[in-house]
Amino acid sequence: MLQDIINDEYYMRLALELAKKAQGQTGINPIVGCVVVKAGRIIGVGAHLKRGEGHAEVHALQMAGTEAEGATVYVTLEPCSHFGKTPPCCERIIDAKVAKVVVAMVDPNPKVAGRGIARLREQGINVTVGVLEAEAMALNEAFIKYVTTGLPFITLKTASTLDGKIAAKSGDSQWVTGPKARELVHTLRHLNDGIMVGAGTALTDDPLLTTRLTVPAISPVRIVADSKLRLPLTSQLISDGTTKTIILTTEQADRAKIRALENAGAMVLACGAGSQVDLKQAMKRIGELEIGSILLEGGGRLNGAMLEAGLIDKLVLFFAPKIIGGAAAPVSFQFEGWDRMADAVQLRNMKVDIIGDDLCVSGYPIYPASQR
Amino acid sequence: MLQDIINDEYYMRLALELAKKAQGQTGINPIVGCVVVKAGRIIGVGAHLKRGEGHAEVHALQMAGTEAEGATVYVTLEPCSHFGKTPPCCERIIDAKVAKVVVAMVDPNPKVAGRGIARLREQGINVTVGVLEAEAMALNEAFIKYVTTGLPFITLKTASTLDGKIAAKSGDSQWVTGPKARELVHTLRHLNDGIMVGAGTALTDDPLLTTRLTVPAISPVRIVADSKLRLPLTSQLISDGTTKTIILTTEQADRAKIRALENAGAMVLACGAGSQVDLKQAMKRIGELEIGSILLEGGGRLNGAMLEAGLIDKLVLFFAPKIIGGAAAPVSFQFEGWDRMADAVQLRNMKVDIIGDDLCVSGYPIYPASQR
Repeated sequence: MLQDIINDEYYMRLALELAKKAQGQTGINPIVGCVVVKAGRIIGVGAHLKRGEGHAEVHALQMAGTEAEGATVYVTLEPCSHFGKTPPCCERIIDAKVAKVVVAMVDPNPKVAGRGIARLREQGINVTVGVLEAEAMALNEAFIKYVTTGLPFITLKTASTLDGKIAAKSGDSQWVTGPKARELVHTLRHLNDGIMVGAGTALTDDPLLTTRLTVPAISPVRIVADSKLRLPLTSQLISDGTTKTIILTTEQADRAKIRALENAGAMVLACGAGSQVDLKQAMKRIGELEIGSILLEGGGRLNGAMLEAGLIDKLVLFFAPKIIGGAAAPVSFQFEGWDRMADAVQLRNMKVDIIGDDLCVSGYPIYPASQR
Repeated sequence: MLQDIINDEYYMRLALELAKKAQGQTGINPIVGCVVVKAGRIIGVGAHLKRGEGHAEVHALQMAGTEAEGATVYVTLEPCSHFGKTPPCCERIIDAKVAKVVVAMVDPNPKVAGRGIARLREQGINVTVGVLEAEAMALNEAFIKYVTTGLPFITLKTASTLDGKIAAKSGDSQWVTGPKARELVHTLRHLNDGIMVGAGTALTDDPLLTTRLTVPAISPVRIVADSKLRLPLTSQLISDGTTKTIILTTEQADRAKIRALENAGAMVLACGAGSQVDLKQAMKRIGELEIGSILLEGGGRLNGAMLEAGLIDKLVLFFAPKIIGGAAAPVSFQFEGWDRMADAVQLRNMKVDIIGDDLCVSGYPIYPASQR
């Protein structure tokens, strides 16, 4: 398109773009963008940039100054009506005497949930709700899950050959996908609060799990599911001292090992009395630690267990255009599986992208009835 | 585009479309389309429709009649210069006194290979070569392989979940992909001279392997790789009496069983003295039977063996948007595999299509150096 048509969506699209670029830096807070417009001119723009600091509307109205009187505020999320870490945005909007507020989506936070919109209308402000709502909801899919359930939004990422192998039978995995796909994976790390692997992957690859891009980026909290506490103190995840590492284990785990890991700076969570980490309990505890989103980077066993437990919210599957073979070669998903094809986990809203030479299939799982 | 620009490609595109629609009905002959144009009007169109019958140019010039004098002939393949089952097209074109011939691609048939173009030029006809050449070569990829090597062009088709399973661990495979993908698979059957499966698939599914579409279509010759001659006389492939069935086996195979299969109407080819069908020898013998193209529809073991032998020319991989799991669930490719990721079979010219709810990844294999 040569030029977009100027209408409500035109400004909301900029507000969404502002929100989007702040993803990964607001923690469990939503990402929000705001644009203030008056008489055909943008007079203020803003985004929520950091948890505990100014909301998008506050920044944008600050920029607009006294010009805000009679203006229209475009905001991707309903303005808050409650005192959280900052005062309610509704009052700031009312004080600025704006004429109209256009909102993309209602705030799913039970503390807001329409009260912000009601408050503005009460004060005689014209409020439109639902402009680019689907786009706004997609951007805040992690926030919506976390604020309504207390559980982190979990994105499972795999990188395999077309025959589903994440390495050759020898274990060689350099490289499955190409540099562009790997750059996108590091971008996904920046966008998530946590990154999670199994002990097997941690032992085999001794990974850093930090975010490494051509520009500085944020590294997520590292989470290792390690039922038997096999991870040595010498592993980079424990010893490199970059970001926090959380070890998930069971109540059966050796006390001395737990103490040693804690002394080395790791946090250890004993989840469940069984021989394997109780993953549902673990995710609840991770949520309590205010980790609202996790990128799950496998191995096959952990991927399979998380999928079987119905804990995955989104799948991002990279496929390199190759076939490697080998019955013993490790696979993306290693689990008991279902007996009937009709019971398979289905992907809804499947999206397919070509990333460099690789394929990226993403979507949202629909679990079989037995799983729900 | 509202309207295509009228130029050489405009007419050649129609000639290619005529050729394309005749795919599957010319056997080991190329598919060819032709359009005759004079003073801005199409005066004749034609296609090669059946082996042994009129070539595209002959049909199109017949339609044009005496008008052809001074006209331009667009043809997707170099006109033949030799007496085959019909007289050379070059002479027909010369007799028609056309002014110009536009050719998409040189005929790879060693009996022609530029001689047709030379003959026309010798007679003072203006000849342009190479208009939409890549498209013409792609259309005749099977013919090019067969006429230059005597071997059939083999398209491997799979239909699996995203984790590479062609059935659940219980064996249940109804259905992996959806109706649109299955309709496309039947279309692929129409487009190929032969269809090939392993004895395992034939025993498990007792398939017909005929082409079943909403309109009548051509069923390919059925080929079963059956090293141990396990296929019973009661299987539909032997007993249904629709199309010919060829059984590939070894010289170790039981003579009495061979005779029983032959008496039931099947053709049995003993390929190699080993315990498994010598697939390279088998493909050579299939080629000698004037089967120029084969659709390979698995199972995993035969797919793997054909890939390991470097015999696959094209891969068409359907993926249903599902994950089923199960280490014992049958997979698309079951073979020894390579040790190093860098040795994997690579896909070139990867194409990705969404077919109904399913994904279709297609491309051409590049085999590791050890395979070539």
